[in-house]
Amino acid sequence: MHEIFFRDQVRAEDRHAVREIVTSTAFFSASEVDVAEELVTERLAKGEESGYFFVFAETLERGPLGYACYGPTPCTESTHDLYWIAVHEEMRGQGLGRTLLAEVEARLRRGKGGKLIAETSSREQYAPTQRFYLSCGFSLEARIRDYYAPGEDILYFTKNIGPLERD
Amino acid sequence: MHEIFFRDQVRAEDRHAVREIVTSTAFFSASEVDVAEELVTERLAKGEESGYFFVFAETLERGPLGYACYGPTPCTESTHDLYWIAVHEEMRGQGLGRTLLAEVEARLRRGKGGKLIAETSSREQYAPTQRFYLSCGFSLEARIRDYYAPGEDILYFTKNIGPLERD
Repeated sequence: MHEIFFRDQVRAEDRHAVREIVTSTAFFSASEVDVAEELVTERLAKGEESGYFFVFAETLERGPLGYACYGPTPCTESTHDLYWIAVHEEMRGQGLGRTLLAEVEARLRRGKGGKLIAETSSREQYAPTQRFYLSCGFSLEARIRDYYAPGEDILYFTKNIGPLERD
Repeated sequence: MHEIFFRDQVRAEDRHAVREIVTSTAFFSASEVDVAEELVTERLAKGEESGYFFVFAETLERGPLGYACYGPTPCTESTHDLYWIAVHEEMRGQGLGRTLLAEVEARLRRGKGGKLIAETSSREQYAPTQRFYLSCGFSLEARIRDYYAPGEDILYFTKNIGPLERD
């Protein structure tokens, strides 16, 4: 595999890259793909004011192969939401999701740290997502029953990210 | 007391009324007052597309004395968020908050019903708010610790609103 770089700046062509990555997973609906792209558009229009921060994982040859989108939770001191994390189908199962999450955590740690929250559904379809968060050190901290639909709860996975110790 | 009317339409002058009601409670910060007004502005600009629905309680003489703002939770089948409920200080303790909440519930019931969620803080300052929701039939369904700040949790109070039975 070619060397992977991580990039925080967001470019106009990332709108297309994000659509392609998210679509390739065959996991998200058309309207969810639209939302994924909208967050990039919003970030391009408003910069950091948008509240959306990105980490892209890319190679020189192929461009972005995965990305995470996160941001400070409004009205909180140091809580952050993990809005999206997705890896292109062709990179599936190689640990890139885990590496992307570690990059997000490193960025929070270089700031003041805080609590990172990932929301997901209780549906069986999302069992791999739930296992992913648990295996990355998240805890299932809260659940609201029948949130998305009858029988489909929202699960809040959280992880405390300590700030980097400085000498 | 003069007769109270409930109104769903939103008018330009409600921006001022909402600021006045929310400020009078001495409960919200300046930035929270701004957010309260912004939701009215957003509703005026985008209509129901904004996702913000209002119920104003008013008298002919005084205009709005309290209001609730709620709306469908994005990506859910029938969950609704209660974004704001506030009563002017001069009407405090007369049951208007409870009546406003009943009006919101009546509107959900005339639709397809659903789950109504009210978020609040675990801080002692919000104990009256917490008691208000419990006394109105809400349950404390979920909590995320240290959400707003260290030691300050978010509490999710929820209530299931059944649809109106039709013959």
